[in-house]
Amino acid sequence: MSGNTIGKLFSVTSFGESHGPAIGCVVDGCPPGLVLSEADIQPDLDRRKPGTSKFVTQRKEADAVKILSGVYEGQTTGTPIALLIENSDQRSYDYDKIKEVFRPNHADYAYIQKYGRRDPRGGGRSSARETAVRVAAAAIAKKYLREKLSTVIRGYCAQIGPLQLLAPTTEALWQTVEQNPFFCADLTRVEELEAYMTQLRRDGDSVGARINVEASHVPPGLGEPVYDRLDADLAYALMSINAVKGVEIGDGFAVVNQRGSEGRDEMTPAGFLANHSGGTAGGISTGQNIRCSIALKPTSSITIPGKTIDVDGHATEMRTTGRHDPCVGIRATPIAEAMVAIVLMDHFLRNRAQNGDVVPVTPII
Amino acid sequence: MSGNTIGKLFSVTSFGESHGPAIGCVVDGCPPGLVLSEADIQPDLDRRKPGTSKFVTQRKEADAVKILSGVYEGQTTGTPIALLIENSDQRSYDYDKIKEVFRPNHADYAYIQKYGRRDPRGGGRSSARETAVRVAAAAIAKKYLREKLSTVIRGYCAQIGPLQLLAPTTEALWQTVEQNPFFCADLTRVEELEAYMTQLRRDGDSVGARINVEASHVPPGLGEPVYDRLDADLAYALMSINAVKGVEIGDGFAVVNQRGSEGRDEMTPAGFLANHSGGTAGGISTGQNIRCSIALKPTSSITIPGKTIDVDGHATEMRTTGRHDPCVGIRATPIAEAMVAIVLMDHFLRNRAQNGDVVPVTPII
Amino acid sequence: MSGNTIGKLFSVTSFGESHGPAIGCVVDGCPPGLVLSEADIQPDLDRRKPGTSKFVTQRKEADAVKILSGVYEGQTTGTPIALLIENSDQRSYDYDKIKEVFRPNHADYAYIQKYGRRDPRGGGRSSARETAVRVAAAAIAKKYLREKLSTVIRGYCAQIGPLQLLAPTTEALWQTVEQNPFFCADLTRVEELEAYMTQLRRDGDSVGARINVEASHVPPGLGEPVYDRLDADLAYALMSINAVKGVEIGDGFAVVNQRGSEGRDEMTPAGFLANHSGGTAGGISTGQNIRCSIALKPTSSITIPGKTIDVDGHATEMRTTGRHDPCVGIRATPIAEAMVAIVLMDHFLRNRAQNGDVVPVTPII
Amino acid sequence: MSGNTIGKLFSVTSFGESHGPAIGCVVDGCPPGLVLSEADIQPDLDRRKPGTSKFVTQRKEADAVKILSGVYEGQTTGTPIALLIENSDQRSYDYDKIKEVFRPNHADYAYIQKYGRRDPRGGGRSSARETAVRVAAAAIAKKYLREKLSTVIRGYCAQIGPLQLLAPTTEALWQTVEQNPFFCADLTRVEELEAYMTQLRRDGDSVGARINVEASHVPPGLGEPVYDRLDADLAYALMSINAVKGVEIGDGFAVVNQRGSEGRDEMTPAGFLANHSGGTAGGISTGQNIRCSIALKPTSSITIPGKTIDVDGHATEMRTTGRHDPCVGIRATPIAEAMVAIVLMDHFLRNRAQNGDVVPVTPII
Repeated sequence: MSGNTIGKLFSVTSFGESHGPAIGCVVDGCPPGLVLSEADIQPDLDRRKPGTSKFVTQRKEADAVKILSGVYEGQTTGTPIALLIENSDQRSYDYDKIKEVFRPNHADYAYIQKYGRRDPRGGGRSSARETAVRVAAAAIAKKYLREKLSTVIRGYCAQIGPLQLLAPTTEALWQTVEQNPFFCADLTRVEELEAYMTQLRRDGDSVGARINVEASHVPPGLGEPVYDRLDADLAYALMSINAVKGVEIGDGFAVVNQRGSEGRDEMTPAGFLANHSGGTAGGISTGQNIRCSIALKPTSSITIPGKTIDVDGHATEMRTTGRHDPCVGIRATPIAEAMVAIVLMDHFLRNRAQNGDVVPVTPII
Repeated sequence: MSGNTIGKLFSVTSFGESHGPAIGCVVDGCPPGLVLSEADIQPDLDRRKPGTSKFVTQRKEADAVKILSGVYEGQTTGTPIALLIENSDQRSYDYDKIKEVFRPNHADYAYIQKYGRRDPRGGGRSSARETAVRVAAAAIAKKYLREKLSTVIRGYCAQIGPLQLLAPTTEALWQTVEQNPFFCADLTRVEELEAYMTQLRRDGDSVGARINVEASHVPPGLGEPVYDRLDADLAYALMSINAVKGVEIGDGFAVVNQRGSEGRDEMTPAGFLANHSGGTAGGISTGQNIRCSIALKPTSSITIPGKTIDVDGHATEMRTTGRHDPCVGIRATPIAEAMVAIVLMDHFLRNRAQNGDVVPVTPII
Repeated sequence: MSGNTIGKLFSVTSFGESHGPAIGCVVDGCPPGLVLSEADIQPDLDRRKPGTSKFVTQRKEADAVKILSGVYEGQTTGTPIALLIENSDQRSYDYDKIKEVFRPNHADYAYIQKYGRRDPRGGGRSSARETAVRVAAAAIAKKYLREKLSTVIRGYCAQIGPLQLLAPTTEALWQTVEQNPFFCADLTRVEELEAYMTQLRRDGDSVGARINVEASHVPPGLGEPVYDRLDADLAYALMSINAVKGVEIGDGFAVVNQRGSEGRDEMTPAGFLANHSGGTAGGISTGQNIRCSIALKPTSSITIPGKTIDVDGHATEMRTTGRHDPCVGIRATPIAEAMVAIVLMDHFLRNRAQNGDVVPVTPII
Repeated sequence: MSGNTIGKLFSVTSFGESHGPAIGCVVDGCPPGLVLSEADIQPDLDRRKPGTSKFVTQRKEADAVKILSGVYEGQTTGTPIALLIENSDQRSYDYDKIKEVFRPNHADYAYIQKYGRRDPRGGGRSSARETAVRVAAAAIAKKYLREKLSTVIRGYCAQIGPLQLLAPTTEALWQTVEQNPFFCADLTRVEELEAYMTQLRRDGDSVGARINVEASHVPPGLGEPVYDRLDADLAYALMSINAVKGVEIGDGFAVVNQRGSEGRDEMTPAGFLANHSGGTAGGISTGQNIRCSIALKPTSSITIPGKTIDVDGHATEMRTTGRHDPCVGIRATPIAEAMVAIVLMDHFLRNRAQNGDVVPVTPII
């Protein structure tokens, strides 16, 4: 199958360019009987939406999703669910000037090398606008997992540039995450974040970020080793997000300088004593919380001029004006959650295929 | 398709348990006309083989590979290539005592939760012994890529526990990597590494490691966004290696605290001025070197006792004796190279399907 | 992957119900650089469209296709092409009465058994309306194959009920096929066909049909044995058309009583002496014309009452009024062509992946 | 995925050539807990085995299967099951003379066109010897389906050349099928069949056959429309058998001249009144018996000389001596059953993934 489908049993096939008439997807494999309407999907889209604060791109998009199929009398029927989001704010004149130039660190050059052409309007297919589709599709997975298994998937911003941010260790802190444009768990840091972002804008620069995602109430047994491990599929799905350059499960790169005696998650009849492994062992979920983390690079769309070449190979300079996120990580939290949701949903179905609806021995947690 | 196949067009379907009669795989999709014999595969297997130094498991395995199909008169025919490696040193008595106990941080518990049973002999299917199969299959990909595209895929150990090791920046240093059991680029550090490992063994403990892989002469245009990006598939393949907890492409997690003005790879008519991105943009290879990195956790098979439970849920303690690698990262270099090779080969074929044998405009490098 | 995608490299993911807001698909894997607009797709849709003669359903659908993505400045970009066809004539009141009853020989009962529910409006997902999507997607494949390889894919009606119809053996006869609503190669039979259909309508009954498809200028070498043979994938694709109960390649069931000495296609330096095999050997195209044939059953939507049960399991009778095709085979010719086109396109790409753009030794034909 | 894997969740990846050291496969996705040993597989292999009567090829093969993985303490573990069958009777000297010549109607020419080379020993990969692998893999599916669902899959020979044979309508007749080398349900016809075959051998000719397969106790709900319908996947799997040129489900091509009023399977509270449809509706199993039928062409390996060309394109003649089946259909019954079993098993798992282990409303049959 071609590269725009993710998931083997809960599969999302995505389409659309930044400045085409619409973006959307086909979700195939959703079990029948899930109560579903646009109202279940819109909230996550609104969390990712551009233009919600002055720290993100000012592109105005309603991001209103329409369900075109697969739902009858308010419930999923088991047939494909098509989702459509029209592009309303397609200011393609912004992009005419970059048609002849490869923006450094953008996909422009690679697309030309691959396809011999590219759609330069807003990055075309390589635009992060496509991630709206993932968020929409994942909202279905999230709802199914929550209703069927009580699985909850939540992310937060763990770091923006040099600013390390608190992890939400309580329900109250998880609520806080939703109450500020940075998906930050500590409202006392928001002012500092705002000041940092304002200075960044003034500098005409951008910065990276780290987003963490946690999934709780994940049933044990998900994952299909030796290749389609749960952690391997999470790595694939998370690395497929625009600008992501690193993925960690559990302690991640901290394990390099860890001893076996510290890093193992000992078990007792009352449960695990730690969760260094991030909820998987041998590529299969253990019932502990899934913990994963991604690193997003700073966007290359900045106003500080950079060296590049044009389509004829001549040297030139490039500074990107227009509407851009100075830290693409800010809006990445719902996207990261989405990828985790799609992977968990897919693996829930894959495990059920082989092992049936068996009630596992009550797992320790 | 089920979880033991990697690759869509160059696909490797793996089978076998640590203590069954044999492990092996079927490689489907290899182009016809490649000169191939066991002698092309054995060297990489020998690099990964156990028992080659006192710092790795003392299990004795010849790891002799047999080609069962797909080669006629010394050349591949385009039909499936089956590879078989017999298990010769199956001391399963070592494992009888762990049959009733879940080793902490091992896959034991997860396998039971998933399948309702497990093969406890040497970890069964979850054993890293399976990675021999990957190395064997990848040797075919490596040879094809080298002969067809001059692509070279090489890895080295970048860190063992606290000891950070030199990157091989010259051909001479890449040769050095092959001249010591640690895949280390600096022979002056080998003594220190030996001392560290010896102390670790005495402590009955284990430690993590970081392995880096570089691929040079990778044609631009490989990768199938938006999901099957080259970097996403690399993340999947590398995370599927036993004990891996983190994957980075290019600068990896360092991008979190990077500015857009520093992190972008500026371009000139003479080539890229940097390679922060690790050879991909928008999920497509740029022609620069692919750079990736993995973190391997310390093995949990240590002699320091750890808390755990038995299959009846009762508390117990576990200390793992037997033959184990105190640092599984030591033998992971050829395995990491293997996963990169399989992914590049698969994407070379996928790109050729859609874009044909087009000669790209001479890419800048 | 789930069941609504056909093709591995040229893949079509279909969605939509008979009486939902729209049907459509995502075509992934189309090579870049194909000149494409709605005008390339509409003609095939018009050939399949309902309401074009009094011998088919009177449902009025413009079947106007919109391209939502994957085309920039009139050429395909290599990214997914989404096609959308709005449903305009959704008279769902026609179907309210059948909501509680299983129409005999329809998919109603099977859908309920599978999904626990069904969309009864016009058969929902099981309606042959979905085949419009296939015709639209295949128009892209047809154009690519024709321009790149001169491959031409054409079908005709070979039999309606007892009436056996001439095969178009000349270009003029192939033109004739397009000049009557039956896709019949002999205009002198059209009156007879009209009389037969008129009588059938009066009887309130329906009848089966046989459609043949031929593809010429198919390059040798397409097909991926041992399973994904070209003929096997054709059988799959053709059997997936609503109402199809049989598929033949070449001589089909006539081979049962054939001798090896008559059935073999002897070869000479000037070409093959016969084409019993229908253009494949060992599951691979030989360069001869692909010849295949399908049998379509009579629709069960007839006004003659039939025994059935309702959703509570009680006996009842059913007669289907409303808008129906008395011979679904009449409109099946473009659909059968479509499936052949999708399969050939997919196999062209699959073969190119493994074997590259090699120019074959001039094949004999 | 490449072309040598069948099945998405119960997947069989096949390898091996007629005259290589071994043939075999990897079965991935078999649920854990199935009691399994070689003794469960061997009987079906023995039914297909060459050399069992004078009416089939005299090649001597023990066809002894070995399980290399996936079974522990007599039960499947849920991990891949590798099956190996060594080739013992590889008289490749028989084939040296055909190395330079394309046998008419064989795969020789197509393989050369595709791969630029071929393994001429016994047809290499295109040999029907590979079907032993399918039979072996399917024995696992058959056992699972029988034990879990009471599904029974049985085939018989319905026609050899002009001789039409009785359908086994009783259990006693199904027993008879197993008591003669023709898989014929009527022992009174065996003498006639023997005489016919003897004459055919004397003529140096071969003939076609029709094999029918029936599956009973198939749960309703299997099949994934709109493409991966149960009947579509059956058509694919059956057409992938060597020499098959036609596939029918239910009444097959007889529907062409059928009226809707005769062809529909009316329903009553006591069950269906007919099974014209062959057990599927809308591509989904109804709970009725699955009925399908294949046409196998006469083998082209005959001693009557035929016109052909050599690898240099020169005209020549060919007569095939050596060991061949004068009617490949004779040994095709277990192979046809195998393909049906693999498809049903795969669809059982696919349906369970989406719809869970739901107990359907007691279906009418």
